[in-house]
Amino acid sequence: MGRILEKITSPEEVKKLTNVELEVLASEIREFLIDSVSKTGGHLASNLGVVELTLSLFKSFNLEKDKIVWDVGHQCYVHKILTGRKEQFDKLRKYNGLSGFPKRCESKYDAFDTGHSSTSISAALGMARARDIKKEKNEVIAVIGDGALTGGMALEALNDVGFNKTKMIIILNDNQMSISPNVGGLSMHLNKLRMEPKYNKLKSNINETLKTSKTGEKVASCISRFKDSLKQFIVPSMLFEDMGLKYIGPIDGHDIENLTEVFEMAKNIDDPVIIHVVTNKGKGYELAEKNPNKYHGVSPFDLESGETNIPSKKNYSKAFGEAMIELAREDERIVAITAAMPDGTGLNNFAKEFPNRFFDVGIAEGHATTLAAGFAAANLKPVFAVYSTFLQRAFDQVIHDVCIQNMPVVFAIDRAGLVGEDGETHQGIFDLSYLSEIPNMTVLAPKHLDEVKSMLSWALNHNGPVAIRYPRGADIYKDIIPLEKIEYGKWEKIILGDKIAILAVGKMLQHALLAREILSNKGINPMIINASFIKPLDVELLKDLVNENYNIITIEDNITNGGFGSYVLMKLNELGFKNKFKALGFNDTFVPQGDVKLLYKENKLDPEGIAESIIELIE
Amino acid sequence: MGRILEKITSPEEVKKLTNVELEVLASEIREFLIDSVSKTGGHLASNLGVVELTLSLFKSFNLEKDKIVWDVGHQCYVHKILTGRKEQFDKLRKYNGLSGFPKRCESKYDAFDTGHSSTSISAALGMARARDIKKEKNEVIAVIGDGALTGGMALEALNDVGFNKTKMIIILNDNQMSISPNVGGLSMHLNKLRMEPKYNKLKSNINETLKTSKTGEKVASCISRFKDSLKQFIVPSMLFEDMGLKYIGPIDGHDIENLTEVFEMAKNIDDPVIIHVVTNKGKGYELAEKNPNKYHGVSPFDLESGETNIPSKKNYSKAFGEAMIELAREDERIVAITAAMPDGTGLNNFAKEFPNRFFDVGIAEGHATTLAAGFAAANLKPVFAVYSTFLQRAFDQVIHDVCIQNMPVVFAIDRAGLVGEDGETHQGIFDLSYLSEIPNMTVLAPKHLDEVKSMLSWALNHNGPVAIRYPRGADIYKDIIPLEKIEYGKWEKIILGDKIAILAVGKMLQHALLAREILSNKGINPMIINASFIKPLDVELLKDLVNENYNIITIEDNITNGGFGSYVLMKLNELGFKNKFKALGFNDTFVPQGDVKLLYKENKLDPEGIAESIIELIE
Repeated sequence: MGRILEKITSPEEVKKLTNVELEVLASEIREFLIDSVSKTGGHLASNLGVVELTLSLFKSFNLEKDKIVWDVGHQCYVHKILTGRKEQFDKLRKYNGLSGFPKRCESKYDAFDTGHSSTSISAALGMARARDIKKEKNEVIAVIGDGALTGGMALEALNDVGFNKTKMIIILNDNQMSISPNVGGLSMHLNKLRMEPKYNKLKSNINETLKTSKTGEKVASCISRFKDSLKQFIVPSMLFEDMGLKYIGPIDGHDIENLTEVFEMAKNIDDPVIIHVVTNKGKGYELAEKNPNKYHGVSPFDLESGETNIPSKKNYSKAFGEAMIELAREDERIVAITAAMPDGTGLNNFAKEFPNRFFDVGIAEGHATTLAAGFAAANLKPVFAVYSTFLQRAFDQVIHDVCIQNMPVVFAIDRAGLVGEDGETHQGIFDLSYLSEIPNMTVLAPKHLDEVKSMLSWALNHNGPVAIRYPRGADIYKDIIPLEKIEYGKWEKIILGDKIAILAVGKMLQHALLAREILSNKGINPMIINASFIKPLDVELLKDLVNENYNIITIEDNITNGGFGSYVLMKLNELGFKNKFKALGFNDTFVPQGDVKLLYKENKLDPEGIAESIIELIE
Repeated sequence: MGRILEKITSPEEVKKLTNVELEVLASEIREFLIDSVSKTGGHLASNLGVVELTLSLFKSFNLEKDKIVWDVGHQCYVHKILTGRKEQFDKLRKYNGLSGFPKRCESKYDAFDTGHSSTSISAALGMARARDIKKEKNEVIAVIGDGALTGGMALEALNDVGFNKTKMIIILNDNQMSISPNVGGLSMHLNKLRMEPKYNKLKSNINETLKTSKTGEKVASCISRFKDSLKQFIVPSMLFEDMGLKYIGPIDGHDIENLTEVFEMAKNIDDPVIIHVVTNKGKGYELAEKNPNKYHGVSPFDLESGETNIPSKKNYSKAFGEAMIELAREDERIVAITAAMPDGTGLNNFAKEFPNRFFDVGIAEGHATTLAAGFAAANLKPVFAVYSTFLQRAFDQVIHDVCIQNMPVVFAIDRAGLVGEDGETHQGIFDLSYLSEIPNMTVLAPKHLDEVKSMLSWALNHNGPVAIRYPRGADIYKDIIPLEKIEYGKWEKIILGDKIAILAVGKMLQHALLAREILSNKGINPMIINASFIKPLDVELLKDLVNENYNIITIEDNITNGGFGSYVLMKLNELGFKNKFKALGFNDTFVPQGDVKLLYKENKLDPEGIAESIIELIE
């Protein structure tokens, strides 16, 4: 790798570099990033976009005491490279390897763990106020994308910062994208700011001003001179000013000299400051610049062609997207909502065919859920497609706006169960618990790709809220016959057997079938049941199992805390069950990053682990 | 009651009244409200503030097709009076009586159920977009307070509305209050708008303009004339304009003529419009105007003195507030956070004594939680005091920002269990479920007022997240000895007994003791255990119960779905328990409004109901 990069093992060394050296280092880092991520996969475009920004932060601030909170966090690779973790990039996002997100347990330079969007201003504000309470001196910086700024909690935090005037620096990393292009009034506002003719003049303007004030010379006169000159930079963003923040920008996010000068100035402002930095997502890798959406998070890929070697086979998201289009052609009351995930949820083709019935609301799951309830109140059939882990953001809205009113809203919950490399923050292992506990809610899981459509169709005709949860990726077991007719609260016996009944949820059915193959060799032949409805349970079938004296195992790719298994056991207790029972799932634990297969194994949810648990139980 | 009011039984009749008659009706409604609420209790100040606003809405819009969504909803009394529900006000907030919030099941004029804050723009936007999809013609109006506007989801919704330019009307009811005075950058901005010298000129200004355009005459020329004249009204609120909304205001919210004229105009604008209306909370009742906070929600009171006949005895909120002050005097790392509830949570005296360690963040539970995590990351000891039902808004932040990082944040959860008259939307019956399912979380409940301090003290020294949940009000059973020493995961045997062990959570312990008195008369003497830790369970004690062959009953004032009982049963199953078990709580149901005692009875959680269940189980 590059000659300067080789020498950087701590933030301190970055501070010693000249601007020219920093420019060279930027190229070396880009080269390293593209090469490294092409081998391991990971978040590419967002990191290419913040190379100069990160270098400028390291140049201007003292990371031994100053705190940088990276919003979402998938743009932290440069930060990791510069804080002694370059050598670990071959294990990026692997089990026991380097996290793709900031992790306090990895480095003292990681101020706060992130993963979900829009948390940075709140967390940084806590650190800034703690500093003031303890009468310490240090800078606190939140770096937040324009996408993350559409999240309600970021706006709540801005409102608080501006009111209480806590000194902190917010860097608005404006690349005009969430994962997909940005939406929202704020985003239009930022566009307008970028278009201002003043923007182009800004750089020379700043340089002019700085000639009259030596940076580094932090005397009072300099500060007040700076404050005067500041006014010249301010393109009138009354929006932020009205909320009580000082606004500086927009600034070219790839101009290190300019950035470091602005940061030096910002340190001297006692009020909260928002610095609007414009960056190009994917900067420096032509393929990624042209298609930042595709290169947001990537599998390993070929450097020249940009091709990944993952065949684009059918998966659950695609199956959902296709089902939505087919059903929407027949029923014009169907509308679709996404919170900034049109691609990930499989809705992009729906958006093309039904632009007037498709709503991307930005990173705003709470609003999305209540918007859906509003649609339902007006007699439409809304489907909110959302990742399991992100629906957590709308827990109250699901209870308060959907379930209390028994609104027919369909939640199409993607990435349920394990997602793998994104780790703790992204595993979808809580949904069965937090949804099943809500009255009026119905919860289903398909056992096969082709059941997504029949479940969706059923859900759209059910008079109440329904959640359909399905995993990332495709099916792993071939010979399953999809259910054609969904019947409310009815499970499906897949294979008859004796002594033991396995009740499996969704993808876990496929593991159960593989486990049965192992067990059959040992003369154990459990009955296998597809628990297609997690809520309500099939009480009639449970009664039969109790009467026929089965031992019962439940399997779910969800936390066992308040999970499917616990509902089954509560019902079995009512039915007078006295046999053996075991609930398999994730036991009161967060699941770290890693290959999904490996994580199943670690949690004894792979076919071998399941077979073992069954043998243990009945012995 | 008043002569005009007597004749109003539907919205239609309001439209026929002249402005002079409407002014008279306003007085009659105020008189009715003050008299009626003084007898039943309820939300007074907020309703007195919107009398003219509501009348103007009814005058200007056609409620047979236009939709009004009242944010939070406790300002809907005037709306209810005008839509044929005046006679039901003697049963306001009573069991099976008139709800204190909008309810679709009560009236076709209630467009959307509310209760929690900040949902109205999202719901109304859904209705407005549904109208456009169905190519119907009607107006959709969200009425939202300046307090509710600090909630993140309202800001998410504004961002969406402004971007997609959906025609709708947002009425910002600016009374400078949440329940307590408002905080936040937005609130400062609204203050500034109110101070504008233009405000005072505005009324005459509008009247001038309207003389040149007949209202009602909706011809194109009029519209364009209006659009030109509109510019004169606009005090430059770039904040809303920058987000893509048209802004009109501020308007005097007690001037019916002015309001109806502005509403007529707003109908003719195709873009989304925000109308900034300034009202006085408590208007027309001097005591409430002077102290809107006190008269936000009231018990029955004496009309002249304003005195309620509720003695201000010690309750859980006060116990918490006092404990916070005592502990904070000894440990300067303790900081307190509230989301717009300094009074309700008992933190007002803390705020006075430690203004620099107290943070009211507005109605922003998500931000509050992550702010707390930021404090913890900087080695302070944050306590977020919040109502059980409102913490639902921060479910993801509790998982993502607090528990994954195992941050020592204390959640002081007030109003856990039943709250009574506020009904479904406010009962705190989900917290044991949604908190216990999260890894790293510890959950406790005091059985006595005086345990709040010892639990808080214990929690502040525990190295991880802790939730302490306690009920509204005071203790009901006298002879309980408070625990002095909290030991992690250890329960407390209160009374020994045989055959049956009752594991009771928090306030339910007092019911269990009363139930035991009933049972003793029938020769049944259950052991009573205080399950002070909901998570983790006291496994050693459970083992003993299993070995000693007890039947086991759990009691929690929480939903049984994923509740304490289900965790106990899962553990008992592991321990080889074969006896009888029953989990008492709320069974997969929302709990409506009503007197708490009556609601317990309905759900068989009163002492008699508990005794009955126990007899049933063992027979």
